[in-house]
Amino acid sequence: MQSFEIDKSDLIRIKTALEGNDADLELVLKDYHASEIAILFERLPQEARERIINILPTEEASEVITEMTEESHPEELLVNLHPEKRSEIVEELDYDVATDIISQLDEEDQREILQDIDQEDATSIRALLNYQEDTAGGLMNSQVICVNINLTKKEALEDIIRQSEEMEEFYTIYVVDEAKILHGIVSIKDILKARSEIKVRDIYQHDPVFVKADLDQEEVAKLISQYNLTSIPVVDDHMKLLGRITVDDIIDVMEAENTEDILKISGVSEDEELSGNWKDAVKSRLPWLVINLGTAFLAASIIRNFDATVKSLAIISAYMTIIAGMGGNTATQALAVTVRRISLSDLSDRQAYNTVLKEFLVGLINGACNGLIVLAVACFYDANPMLGLVLFLAMTGNLVIAGITGASIPLILKRIGIDPAVASSIIITTFTDCIGFFLPLWLASKLLL
Amino acid sequence: MQSFEIDKSDLIRIKTALEGNDADLELVLKDYHASEIAILFERLPQEARERIINILPTEEASEVITEMTEESHPEELLVNLHPEKRSEIVEELDYDVATDIISQLDEEDQREILQDIDQEDATSIRALLNYQEDTAGGLMNSQVICVNINLTKKEALEDIIRQSEEMEEFYTIYVVDEAKILHGIVSIKDILKARSEIKVRDIYQHDPVFVKADLDQEEVAKLISQYNLTSIPVVDDHMKLLGRITVDDIIDVMEAENTEDILKISGVSEDEELSGNWKDAVKSRLPWLVINLGTAFLAASIIRNFDATVKSLAIISAYMTIIAGMGGNTATQALAVTVRRISLSDLSDRQAYNTVLKEFLVGLINGACNGLIVLAVACFYDANPMLGLVLFLAMTGNLVIAGITGASIPLILKRIGIDPAVASSIIITTFTDCIGFFLPLWLASKLLL
Repeated sequence: MQSFEIDKSDLIRIKTALEGNDADLELVLKDYHASEIAILFERLPQEARERIINILPTEEASEVITEMTEESHPEELLVNLHPEKRSEIVEELDYDVATDIISQLDEEDQREILQDIDQEDATSIRALLNYQEDTAGGLMNSQVICVNINLTKKEALEDIIRQSEEMEEFYTIYVVDEAKILHGIVSIKDILKARSEIKVRDIYQHDPVFVKADLDQEEVAKLISQYNLTSIPVVDDHMKLLGRITVDDIIDVMEAENTEDILKISGVSEDEELSGNWKDAVKSRLPWLVINLGTAFLAASIIRNFDATVKSLAIISAYMTIIAGMGGNTATQALAVTVRRISLSDLSDRQAYNTVLKEFLVGLINGACNGLIVLAVACFYDANPMLGLVLFLAMTGNLVIAGITGASIPLILKRIGIDPAVASSIIITTFTDCIGFFLPLWLASKLLL
Repeated sequence: MQSFEIDKSDLIRIKTALEGNDADLELVLKDYHASEIAILFERLPQEARERIINILPTEEASEVITEMTEESHPEELLVNLHPEKRSEIVEELDYDVATDIISQLDEEDQREILQDIDQEDATSIRALLNYQEDTAGGLMNSQVICVNINLTKKEALEDIIRQSEEMEEFYTIYVVDEAKILHGIVSIKDILKARSEIKVRDIYQHDPVFVKADLDQEEVAKLISQYNLTSIPVVDDHMKLLGRITVDDIIDVMEAENTEDILKISGVSEDEELSGNWKDAVKSRLPWLVINLGTAFLAASIIRNFDATVKSLAIISAYMTIIAGMGGNTATQALAVTVRRISLSDLSDRQAYNTVLKEFLVGLINGACNGLIVLAVACFYDANPMLGLVLFLAMTGNLVIAGITGASIPLILKRIGIDPAVASSIIITTFTDCIGFFLPLWLASKLLL
């Protein structure tokens, strides 16, 4: 079994079937899993998507819509469906999925969709719409299995089977009292093993790990990963059980957070949609570039100050770009390792100190090695050993500073509460450019002229 | 509830307790979850770790060892324990965890540990040691719950409860025949709901998603994420059930893969341990830097060829560094967005074409905007409008080429089967350096001299 990748032949098969009648199309669709149809949708026009959703049984149609990525805009598909079909599908969706999709619509469309569906579902979805999308509340599903703490084994088992009718998988069973206050969790295994007179209160596990509804989703992901949980209950300030977040939702959060990290470290706004259009991309990246242009002028002004040096030794302007560029690369390496290390765990003062010390050493050695190569080229190609010495010293100095900067700036940002990934390579390489221009020019002006 | 971060006070508390007697230490340890103790271990010396493991009940000690990161080297801790305590702990570990830890030891230590433990456990671990660490086989746990397809409801339920004694959570129940050939899955819910005369074969779900033992772990992660699974069965070539991989193992794989992506895109070898020492860091990064030094000489040789231009217009050497730097940044932005996009899903030819087209447009607009700023500076600060025109054209041209390169190189690498993240910003910025030096120098030599 391989991960599903869209094959030209699958696409041709679906497109051919779309030209035929419903019965043939239905037959072809049977060969695909809902998540595969969702991927095929990315390549199909809106009317083809609608036709397929209308043909599929409600349960599968809702699975396809669940699997569609945000960027395929499932909400547009939903709005265009016949109201009756749409209501059936929305009622079948998990509350958290329905909420995510409906939240993308304007208020009028939201109202129209919610008034047509079962009113108990509508109330739950309306409640979820109030939470911020990137918090525990926005991520949770309010459909959970919970048992009253005072039930006997037999009553609890019956209640669990009744509640599980509507759910695919039930993960953890939560133990609550009459006011829905969360007391703990109980495993189906422990219920099954218990003797018949045993009550839930005798066998449940106290002190479950839980989160408040307003906790940031990144923190939820850290908790689930740290405690190896398959799901985590979400409560309000009074410990009332509101819902639960499952590990598969967290995988999506982790993907999104990782995308953000890579984008930020590369000087792209974290909000840029990967498949967004050019207008959004310009909006997201131009500000960074303009900031960088300002700092680049700063670096260039250093060269201006050594105008005489450049005029009398034009070759230095070729070498200084090498030294500045190598500094940028060294800083980028130190930055990537440090940012990633911070994002996986917090560093103590001592670990932070050791990290900077390590990057100092790495910069020193890599600087000396590359400096020796440049020294050799200056001696043998340019026949100028003194220039070689200048370049050796400048290369070593710049790579030492680059290592220290690349490690310490994200560490400092983290300490003062700023996301360390913002110390993008774009910002840090400007700094190494300045030093990379200054050192060879200044050393040359002192030692060569 | 917040994610556990080590507090100075926790560390002081543990350290103080370590100076006291065992009873006091035991009392203090009771306040911490196993995963919290594992985090505290990162700050404690080897002998303190050993003492704590010896004091903890076997079950909790094994949980702590399970939660220790690879970089804290749980295998060293294990080797140093008293053989009897060690055997108890190893027998308590999940097979996949035990295998991962033991695989870090040399063969003699492996043999010594395995000969002391229960021989059924040892056989399972030895079998797992044969799989590559980064494949489904290396990731799987061979402890699964499976029921024979011919059992009745009552027999199946008894069998499941018996098997679940040894397991924390049982996720999915697999349906097999006498030869352990995988036929499907069955949910505990469906078993509970079934009438008593029903057999497993009447209620199980056919055609489960499965993986072969040699599948790369990254593909396993994609499948679990794509199909929203909590676990996936692992089989051999004859469909014999070997084990299962759970979603919490996949979270660790995803973290590791994401670290690799960020490191590679920044020109750091993917194998570099984040908290490794300076020697490993030099080994991992120096080769990249030397490759880059070679390409930097290439870029610098362009400047050498315009020696006369630089001599007669020294200011151009300041401006060309700005243009080259801005090209590097633009390419890094396009690269990050494209690499991340490819790693989340495969692009069709048309999507690939549109991506390059988009980056062309973004480069053109961002180039023209930044070009206008440089033009203005050249006009008003240097009072040289013709130089301004040269710089405007060079900036626009370089950013267009940077956008196209940043998007197309990872796409091309992916097509020819090379990891697109290898198109690190280090490699791509060398290219934009060359163009960034050439364009202003060449235009200046034609238009200004």
